[in-house]
Amino acid sequence: MNSSERYDAFLDITRQIHALELAAEFLSWDQQTGMPPKGAPARALQLSTVEGIRHAVLTGDELGEHLEALGNGVSLDGDAAVNVREMERLRRRALCIPNALVREISKVQSLAMEAWIRARSDSDFGAFAPWLGEMLDLKRQEADEVGYDECRYDALHDEYEPGSTARRLKVLFRTLRDELVPLVAELADSPAAAKRKGVVGDFAVDRQKAFAVNLLTTIGFDWDAGRVDVSAHPFCSGNLHDVRLTTRYDENDITRALFGLLHEGGHGLYEQGFDPAFEGTPRARAVSLGIHESQSRMWENLVGRSRPFWEFALPLLHEAFPFTSSVGLDDWYAAINRVERSMIRVEADEVTYNLHIILRFELEMELIEDRLSVADLPAAWNDRMKSFLGVVPANDAEGVLQDIHWAHGIFGYFPTYALGNLYASQFFHAARNDIPGMDEAIRKGNFAPLLGWLREKIHTRGRTLWPEDLVKDVTGEALNADYQLDYLKEKFRSLYGAG
Amino acid sequence: MNSSERYDAFLDITRQIHALELAAEFLSWDQQTGMPPKGAPARALQLSTVEGIRHAVLTGDELGEHLEALGNGVSLDGDAAVNVREMERLRRRALCIPNALVREISKVQSLAMEAWIRARSDSDFGAFAPWLGEMLDLKRQEADEVGYDECRYDALHDEYEPGSTARRLKVLFRTLRDELVPLVAELADSPAAAKRKGVVGDFAVDRQKAFAVNLLTTIGFDWDAGRVDVSAHPFCSGNLHDVRLTTRYDENDITRALFGLLHEGGHGLYEQGFDPAFEGTPRARAVSLGIHESQSRMWENLVGRSRPFWEFALPLLHEAFPFTSSVGLDDWYAAINRVERSMIRVEADEVTYNLHIILRFELEMELIEDRLSVADLPAAWNDRMKSFLGVVPANDAEGVLQDIHWAHGIFGYFPTYALGNLYASQFFHAARNDIPGMDEAIRKGNFAPLLGWLREKIHTRGRTLWPEDLVKDVTGEALNADYQLDYLKEKFRSLYGAG
Repeated sequence: MNSSERYDAFLDITRQIHALELAAEFLSWDQQTGMPPKGAPARALQLSTVEGIRHAVLTGDELGEHLEALGNGVSLDGDAAVNVREMERLRRRALCIPNALVREISKVQSLAMEAWIRARSDSDFGAFAPWLGEMLDLKRQEADEVGYDECRYDALHDEYEPGSTARRLKVLFRTLRDELVPLVAELADSPAAAKRKGVVGDFAVDRQKAFAVNLLTTIGFDWDAGRVDVSAHPFCSGNLHDVRLTTRYDENDITRALFGLLHEGGHGLYEQGFDPAFEGTPRARAVSLGIHESQSRMWENLVGRSRPFWEFALPLLHEAFPFTSSVGLDDWYAAINRVERSMIRVEADEVTYNLHIILRFELEMELIEDRLSVADLPAAWNDRMKSFLGVVPANDAEGVLQDIHWAHGIFGYFPTYALGNLYASQFFHAARNDIPGMDEAIRKGNFAPLLGWLREKIHTRGRTLWPEDLVKDVTGEALNADYQLDYLKEKFRSLYGAG
Repeated sequence: MNSSERYDAFLDITRQIHALELAAEFLSWDQQTGMPPKGAPARALQLSTVEGIRHAVLTGDELGEHLEALGNGVSLDGDAAVNVREMERLRRRALCIPNALVREISKVQSLAMEAWIRARSDSDFGAFAPWLGEMLDLKRQEADEVGYDECRYDALHDEYEPGSTARRLKVLFRTLRDELVPLVAELADSPAAAKRKGVVGDFAVDRQKAFAVNLLTTIGFDWDAGRVDVSAHPFCSGNLHDVRLTTRYDENDITRALFGLLHEGGHGLYEQGFDPAFEGTPRARAVSLGIHESQSRMWENLVGRSRPFWEFALPLLHEAFPFTSSVGLDDWYAAINRVERSMIRVEADEVTYNLHIILRFELEMELIEDRLSVADLPAAWNDRMKSFLGVVPANDAEGVLQDIHWAHGIFGYFPTYALGNLYASQFFHAARNDIPGMDEAIRKGNFAPLLGWLREKIHTRGRTLWPEDLVKDVTGEALNADYQLDYLKEKFRSLYGAG
């Protein structure tokens, strides 16, 4: 086998693994959007079978032989080297974790999820605590099997954000926290805050959908390569030529579905934006969850909650929902940018959102490092809510039990939400420097300059550069919290009359 | 490993194979109901990957060792013996066909399908002929690899109808043909025929759907274990707790969607009716395509186009579509039972339908046995249309190119459509004997007695008995054409005033 044949054989297996991942994604999409309720047990077996086979192919001898041969002296061009590096990374991690541990985690996941659903419904952390303890033990074992340089947390976090470390997160998040806690107090307690309110009314679901679809078309989403459906928890899945968005509708409030779809649509533009020449390989896949989130948060917030955007879009809203015509640009812009001391992460505004994430990062670090016991977690949660946001949950359901992640064994993932905000601000600042008249274009509903810039600088590059290097390459400096903080202060102080 | 552990290990693999089959079915369902158009190439790779892995597991050493051990002296109860027998049958067939031939057939399928689509659109058989020739060569090779006692055709037909042979089909179909050709002439040319016409009007799609869903609920379809969507070619897929029906709607004519959904719903009732204790094994799967079709044709025709059914359902139609109130039972019953010399199989009435099938059976037999050349096929098709149905297609598109089956390499499948009609009539006759007042129950919209009988006699038995034995067990005699012929003559002569 010569080197070109070897690489082709490697690509065949790589594409098979990717096809199995996508098959599982669509089976899961179907489960969340339209599967008949009685289909759940059979679907679980379909998913575990497909995922088990993916794992077997990823850790199998055939891929191993190709990777070894390709690593030994075969000269690869840049794109091929990216694919080999990334498949090696995936395989190394998969090989580190013994099958028995994978099965045990999977079993405890199911049971912990059931326990979490009941516990949240009863607002009873005690009923979930033993499962959280067991899951933490297993994830600590996983981290030890995978290995790490500085701390266990890194072994888990790295799966979602390659190259990122707790050390880096601590620095970034301390800066954020120190500045955001007083900013929240300043804004949420300002005299202007009490006057702001949302726009409620009769927003028929089919017209909400048509309005959001139209906006997504305008920003560049390709509906021949995507669709939108309803699910309890909004998400985006798929890749390149088939990207599925989901949302949920509130008949009295269009903002939930609208900003939800701008968010998922941002994820979708990233997925549709990879280089199709590399379809089915890491070269045409998302480099990290943080970068993915930077795209969704950018379109949702930096674009979607900006004044230029609504100079363009508000007349369309008035047309689609005539009763909103009495709401002018100032009022609408204020309504969609209310800052509130909130309990629930997924409903939080741009200013408080990062604090919700930092709280979770600090707690899950301490849990994984055994510096906080499961029994003490609810009190620690409530203490930190008090000091970060000045409010204390009335019960566990609106406090420590609100997120599904830990029940699912997902530790090290939360930080990527805040990283997404930081990346987004830093990218957006660079875009504005690179693109003359970007805001003016947005005011006219012309998103092509921004999308073109994102395509060139971020989307088409796939996994070529890891996040830290990508940020440096695109913006000329390392990731830092300044752009996010400057953006938040400028936007919200101006909005709240304190700028 | 003791025999019970051995059987459990065998079941694990069996359920995995089933899970992969269902995963592929749902991916295909999604492709036909809602997948964005650009997703097709990626979906093709997902399907071929999942199907390739299914084939590898089915033909792998692990299943082989279990089957050998279970076949050698391990005593199995009846249900376990069914599962072992059926998995052995599947595996034997899969092992007979060399991988190179499987891949070649798959490759030619794709190309032949594309050629067929273009050829049909241009009504140009010549453009499809080389692909049909190549496909026939490959299917002859497949038949020779699989082996047969009497004729090549049996090796292909057996995949769809275990135990059935061309010899048996010839006898059944000769009787049918000899009686149906004059019956079609008698009915279609009768003075009454010219007066019959369909009911057209404004049938809003959403109300059609609601009406059909309601009828399916009444006959016993479980919507917590199923759903209905739109596709270009209606089908039913899934199994037991998740059964998907599709249809298409004509806004001026409710009968297409209505009888289409009664047909697919009949398939669906069979799928929902297996014994859930055996989920994921052959014991809870359809025994043959002919038996499957007997269930769809029974609900579509023997029930759905019967007078007792519409005594119950016509008032509901009047209520849902008030403009139909002027159509009385006699007119409606006549409208949905028009006998016409038709060109297109999928639009054919109950009397002509079997002749469309027999024509295809005779031609594909002759093609496979090399007694008819591809070049002579269109003329043979037209000659036989003339002698069977008294009409000649104006072009290849409405003649020899109308069906997708041969382009897909499917030979030996068409007969199962006519077998379905024969099974259905013979079963329905037995049901009427076994169930006192069955027609009276149907008149009142009570389908529980019939469905209960089908569940007990057919559905819950899965693959326990092959079709020939199942028919004997349920009806007390071997399959024959008399019940179908008696049913057609009695129903249609009475309708056409010649009875």
